[in-house]
Amino acid sequence: MKLGGWQQDPRTALRVDEHFDLAAFDRSGTPGWTLGRKAAEAFMEQRAQHLSDLQEQLFANGKTGSRKRILVVAQGLDTAGKGGLARHVMGQVDPQGVALKAFKAPTPEERAEPFLARIERALPKPGMIGFFDRSQYEDMLVPGVNGMGAEELAERGRMINDFEKQLVDDECVILKVCLMVSYGEQGRRLLERLDRPDKHWKFSPHDLEVRGQWFKYQSVYQEVLRQTSTDYAPWMVIPADHKWYARAAVSEALTRSLEEMELTWPEADFNVAEERARLALTLDAEPTLS
Amino acid sequence: MKLGGWQQDPRTALRVDEHFDLAAFDRSGTPGWTLGRKAAEAFMEQRAQHLSDLQEQLFANGKTGSRKRILVVAQGLDTAGKGGLARHVMGQVDPQGVALKAFKAPTPEERAEPFLARIERALPKPGMIGFFDRSQYEDMLVPGVNGMGAEELAERGRMINDFEKQLVDDECVILKVCLMVSYGEQGRRLLERLDRPDKHWKFSPHDLEVRGQWFKYQSVYQEVLRQTSTDYAPWMVIPADHKWYARAAVSEALTRSLEEMELTWPEADFNVAEERARLALTLDAEPTLS
Repeated sequence: MKLGGWQQDPRTALRVDEHFDLAAFDRSGTPGWTLGRKAAEAFMEQRAQHLSDLQEQLFANGKTGSRKRILVVAQGLDTAGKGGLARHVMGQVDPQGVALKAFKAPTPEERAEPFLARIERALPKPGMIGFFDRSQYEDMLVPGVNGMGAEELAERGRMINDFEKQLVDDECVILKVCLMVSYGEQGRRLLERLDRPDKHWKFSPHDLEVRGQWFKYQSVYQEVLRQTSTDYAPWMVIPADHKWYARAAVSEALTRSLEEMELTWPEADFNVAEERARLALTLDAEPTLS
Repeated sequence: MKLGGWQQDPRTALRVDEHFDLAAFDRSGTPGWTLGRKAAEAFMEQRAQHLSDLQEQLFANGKTGSRKRILVVAQGLDTAGKGGLARHVMGQVDPQGVALKAFKAPTPEERAEPFLARIERALPKPGMIGFFDRSQYEDMLVPGVNGMGAEELAERGRMINDFEKQLVDDECVILKVCLMVSYGEQGRRLLERLDRPDKHWKFSPHDLEVRGQWFKYQSVYQEVLRQTSTDYAPWMVIPADHKWYARAAVSEALTRSLEEMELTWPEADFNVAEERARLALTLDAEPTLS
């Protein structure tokens, strides 16, 4: 396999451990990638067919009894680029094999049930690549910023860890990516949404309220990331000031995760020679009346 | 707008009326398209950004209160290329704006409810492009081939027509495409699935049973197409021996249908200048403690 400019597996280069320090995290860095933007985009394009083939193999396995699947969990503040990931990374493979789900603030009905219930309903089916734009982690982040106590928050973290452990044991690979944009870059991206009439629909005055709580969010993000980065479902925190880097890193992480699933084409569950003989009878003939 | 090789709108060139004669239909034709394969693929690629922009506009409208949406209904016999349409036409736009649904034979639970119930649950939400791989029409085709009486079949046709009328009145554009492959080409495609181990998962011995009922299917297809091609939701029957043509025709039909929706970017529902001023205060500053 050609490594392109990846000197290190992005899943290793960006992995969160219990000492992860978000304050020291460079949001314009390109960890693991040694070349520039053009090379990253070219490498991604060059790998797209391979990614697509792996996805088809996963899908084929799902159609023939395997439970294997992948869930990509994408988190990040407004403008960090979660939508762009969905578009540019997931857009590389057959849309029939991708299940996208964007989570909003829970509805009254969702509030009345355990917080993981709506997550469970949206999990990818066998053979699929699921993509969560926001996720179960909103149920730690938003309450955490709005005053939930540390103990209760830690309890939610444990519930999520247990939930993810069960999922992984049930042959679902989990790839958790948290896009981290800098305060300055977020400001510039919000300004663009205000300056361009074709971007107004992406802006909400609420975005500025959330921006006003920057440090609270950073602090809760650090807690959440530390508590829920497990061996079986670690977090990658991704510098997101360069959109090209974030996309290249997630694309590569997804490709490598699929490679490690060691997928093969499913065996036929019918007698190929027999079916071939049956079909052959019809090949040079006119269709029969039936 | 450049027309490329489209001398006629494919929606017009391929439209079914009550006299539609499926026996006389050339499955290797390219109605409306005057050039060859390379030109068709190049034209599609050249139009992809425009299609993608229109889709984004539809999506933006959906986020801001409009009910507008599009439903693409894809029918066709095995190997006709429905999956390829999903991949190559729908794959041109942001996956976040596309809702794909593949219908299988109804489950026992689905059989116990009105046949349109599962269809209703899968309809695209405002702003989305829905794609049905098989659809409500399976509930005419399969029973029609297996002995349902003409009267009962016609009644189902009327129910579907009423259902689609309500949908169109509720601002859902419906684009119905029926891919028609020839008997010979279907045979070759099935053979490829048997000859290539990476295609075995796409084959089922049942496909040969269905192939054995070729004329029954053709006959019921003709009935169904005639009865359910309405002014508000006409059928396009698409020659599918050339995959490139089928994809180009559906892509162009979708693009033109989106153009006719006369979409505009939604107006901001906030005071842009005020928000700009609020944001400006934060642009050169450090984030504030909150």
